[in-house]
Amino acid sequence: MSKPRKQLRFGAMLHGVGGNPALWRHPDILSDASVNFELYKSWVRKAEAGKLDLVFVADGLYINEKSIPHFQNRFEPISLLSALASVSTHIGLVGTLSTSYSEPFTVARQFGSLDVLSGGRAGWNVVTSPLEGSALNYGKKEHPEHDLRYRIATEYLEVTRGLWDSWEDGAFVRDKASGVFFDPAKVHALNHEGEFFSVKGPLNIARSKQGRPVIFQAGASEVGKNYAAKEADAIFAGHENIEDAIAFYQDIKARAVSFGRSADDVLIFPGIGPIVGATEEEAERKYQEVANLMTIETALNYLGRFFEHHDFSQYPLDEPFPDIGDLGRNSFQSGTDKIKRDAKERNLTLRQVALQAATPRGNFIGTPEKVADRIEEWFVRGAVDGFMIAEAVPNGLADFVDHVVPILQERGLFRTEYESDTLRGNLGLAIPENRYAREKAKI
Amino acid sequence: MSKPRKQLRFGAMLHGVGGNPALWRHPDILSDASVNFELYKSWVRKAEAGKLDLVFVADGLYINEKSIPHFQNRFEPISLLSALASVSTHIGLVGTLSTSYSEPFTVARQFGSLDVLSGGRAGWNVVTSPLEGSALNYGKKEHPEHDLRYRIATEYLEVTRGLWDSWEDGAFVRDKASGVFFDPAKVHALNHEGEFFSVKGPLNIARSKQGRPVIFQAGASEVGKNYAAKEADAIFAGHENIEDAIAFYQDIKARAVSFGRSADDVLIFPGIGPIVGATEEEAERKYQEVANLMTIETALNYLGRFFEHHDFSQYPLDEPFPDIGDLGRNSFQSGTDKIKRDAKERNLTLRQVALQAATPRGNFIGTPEKVADRIEEWFVRGAVDGFMIAEAVPNGLADFVDHVVPILQERGLFRTEYESDTLRGNLGLAIPENRYAREKAKI
Repeated sequence: MSKPRKQLRFGAMLHGVGGNPALWRHPDILSDASVNFELYKSWVRKAEAGKLDLVFVADGLYINEKSIPHFQNRFEPISLLSALASVSTHIGLVGTLSTSYSEPFTVARQFGSLDVLSGGRAGWNVVTSPLEGSALNYGKKEHPEHDLRYRIATEYLEVTRGLWDSWEDGAFVRDKASGVFFDPAKVHALNHEGEFFSVKGPLNIARSKQGRPVIFQAGASEVGKNYAAKEADAIFAGHENIEDAIAFYQDIKARAVSFGRSADDVLIFPGIGPIVGATEEEAERKYQEVANLMTIETALNYLGRFFEHHDFSQYPLDEPFPDIGDLGRNSFQSGTDKIKRDAKERNLTLRQVALQAATPRGNFIGTPEKVADRIEEWFVRGAVDGFMIAEAVPNGLADFVDHVVPILQERGLFRTEYESDTLRGNLGLAIPENRYAREKAKI
Repeated sequence: MSKPRKQLRFGAMLHGVGGNPALWRHPDILSDASVNFELYKSWVRKAEAGKLDLVFVADGLYINEKSIPHFQNRFEPISLLSALASVSTHIGLVGTLSTSYSEPFTVARQFGSLDVLSGGRAGWNVVTSPLEGSALNYGKKEHPEHDLRYRIATEYLEVTRGLWDSWEDGAFVRDKASGVFFDPAKVHALNHEGEFFSVKGPLNIARSKQGRPVIFQAGASEVGKNYAAKEADAIFAGHENIEDAIAFYQDIKARAVSFGRSADDVLIFPGIGPIVGATEEEAERKYQEVANLMTIETALNYLGRFFEHHDFSQYPLDEPFPDIGDLGRNSFQSGTDKIKRDAKERNLTLRQVALQAATPRGNFIGTPEKVADRIEEWFVRGAVDGFMIAEAVPNGLADFVDHVVPILQERGLFRTEYESDTLRGNLGLAIPENRYAREKAKI
C-alpha cells in the first residue's frame, strides 16, 4: 500500500454576508443573512456535505455607526455554534471569543459544554479584541495595549486548559451499587493564582471525546506569531502572494519547533474567497458584479475600521496614502502595519488602498480546475496546510463545495469521507493528555 | 362564545437526574444524564409534545467534593439551550445565569442571540449566585453579601433591558437600491453610567419576535420578592402547603400592583415533582423506591450545601436541629431561613430535616386523576399560575405529559395546541414596547 497523500484541510467562514461591506446589496444575497438562522443551517449542511473540517464564526464586541453593516446585528458565537451542533454530526464548530473581556471560568465552561454536546467538535479562536471601543461596553477605562493583551491571553489560556483538565478520563465511576459517583483521586482543583487571574476550580464539566477544544489563533504581529506558534493548534493568517505565505509558514513552524512542539502540531489555514465560474469570464464577471457594488465612501469607512474608525474621507483620494503615524497599532497591529507598508512600497493612492482592502480580488478566481490548481500549488509548495473559505461572491461556499472539492478529492488531496467524528480527529491532531494523568504516569 | 377558561402554564425542569442527590442510583436512571445530550433532546421533544410552555435549565458556578453528584459535571445553560433550540419549534428555552459573575453586554448578547435564533423563545432566570465559593472561580476576594447582590442585579437587568432596546423595530431597512442598511434614527447607544456598570452600547443584535427574553426569578427572600415583583415576568417559588402558596401568590401580585404593574404581568410557577402511578399504591411504591436510595450521609451533605457546605455530620442525628446561627443567610437566604423556622416550629430532629430536604414527598403524588385534581385545586384557589415540573422519579416528566396533561386538557385547563411560537405569546405576556419608540410616541 502506498502512503496516503498528505491531505488539505478546509474551513468555511460563516460571516453572514461575508467580510465585504457592500456585498449585501447584491441581488442574490439575503440581506438579513447575519441573523438568518435558517441560512446558517444551510451553510453548515453544505459544508458538511463537502466534508469540510470546520465552520467558523467570527465576532466583535463593539459597533458604531461606521461598522460593517451586517456586524451591526449578528449572532453571538457560543449560542450560534451550539444551535448548529444539533444540525450537524461531523463538522468542527469554531468560534471567536475574546480574552480581554471575559472570564476564563465561564469561557472554559461554555466551550467545554459545546465540546461535550457536539461530541468533541468545538474549537475556540482566541482573540484579544482589536476594537478599542470594546472597553466602553465593559466598564473599562481603556482598551489594554497590544502586548498587555497578549500577556493576558497567555495566562488566560493556561487557566482554561487547566480547567479543562479538572476531571481525568474515567473520573466518573457512577457505580450505582456502591454509590460512588466519581473517584476523588481523579478530580483536581486548579488553584491558579496568576498576574491577571485567580481561579480555584475544578470546572463543572469534564473533558469531551477530543480531550479539549481545538485552539485557533489569527494574530500575525510579532507577539501574535509567537503566541500562535506556542499555544495554537491552528492559525488563520492570510498572505496575498505565495512567497510571503511560504515564508510565514516556515517561520511559524520553526517557531513551533523552537517551543518544543512538532511542526505538525500547528496547522496554517489562511482565509481565501474563491470565485468560481464555469469559464474564466464568468468568474471575472462575478468578481466585477461585487466590486461594482462598492462605493468609495463605503471603502473608506471599511478601511477606517482597522484604524480605530479613523475618518479617511478628510484626505485627497488620488494622492499617496496619507501619513497617519501609529494609528491602528493598538487594534489590528499586523493588518494595519501591512496596509501602511504596502501603500509605501507600491506607492498606492488612498483610493487604491481603500478599494483593494474592501474588494480584494484574491488569487483564487477562475474555473474550478484553475482554482483547484492554485490551491494544490499553495499546498504542495508548503505555503499552507489548508484554507478557510469565505464567501467573496453570492453562493461562493456552495460553488466551492460543488465544483472545487470534487476535483481535489479526485486528485487525492482531500477526504471523501470524514476520518473521525471529532474536530481533532479530522484535523489529524492528537488528543492532548490530561496534565494530571501525565504527572501520575511519570511517577 | 363563552370566555375561554384561564389556562395553566407548565415548564419542565431539565436537571440531568433531578435535584435528588441519590436518584442517579435508581436502576431506571441513566447516571450520565447531566451530560447526555441525546437525553436532553428527548426531554425537550416530550415536553413539546405535551405543549408545555418551556423547559428550564438551572446552573451553578462552583463545585466541591460535597456538591450534588450530577452538578459536578453538567452542561452550561446558554450552549445547552441553543443546541435544544434546533430540535424544537414552539417551546420556551429558559436558563439560569448569574448577575454576580458576568458582564451585562455579554449576557444581553447571548440571551439576545438565543432569542433571535429560536424565533423568540428565550427566557433568562436571573440569579445572584447563592454559592459563596463562586467568588473563588472568578478572582474575587469574597462573595458579595445578599442585599448587595440584589442591588447589582437590579442595575444589571436595567442595563441588559436597555441593550435589548438598542435597535427599534424596523431599524434595519436593508435597501439594496439606496445602500441604506439601517436607519440611524432607530439605533440607540445606551450610555449607561451606574453604580456597578458602565456600558455604552448599542448591542450588536436586534430584538427578537417577542421583543426581548422573558425574565424569570426565583428569589423568595424579602429583597428577592420585591425584586421579582418589580422586575420579573415569572417567578419560580415553592411552598409546601396551599395556604402558604396562596399567601405568597397574593403577596407577590399585590407587590407587582404597588410597583405600577398588572397582577397578570408576573406569573407564579412553583416547582413540583409529581409522582404518578396507575394506582395510589404504584405511585407510593415509586416514591419509596427513590426514598430508599437516600442515605443519611448523602442527605446531610445535601442539606449542608444550602448552608455554605456546613458539615452537619458533627451533630447528633436524633436530637433537635442544631443552632447554627446565621449560617446560610448569605447564600440561599429564603431557603435556609425556612428550614430553620420549620425545624423549630415542628420540633424536627436533624435526621428528619435532612431526609425531608433530600427526598421531599410533595403534594402531587397518586393516580393521574388525583394529581390533576390537586393541580386544579391549587390553580383554581389562586395559589399558582402553573407549575415547573421536576423529575422526582424516573420517567417523571413523561408520566406527567402522557397521563396528567391529557386530563387537564380535557378539563379545559391546559392548551391542546400552542397559541404562539414565541414564549411570551404562549405565556400570554405582552411584547414589551421598545423604550425609545415609546419615548418618540409620547412626543
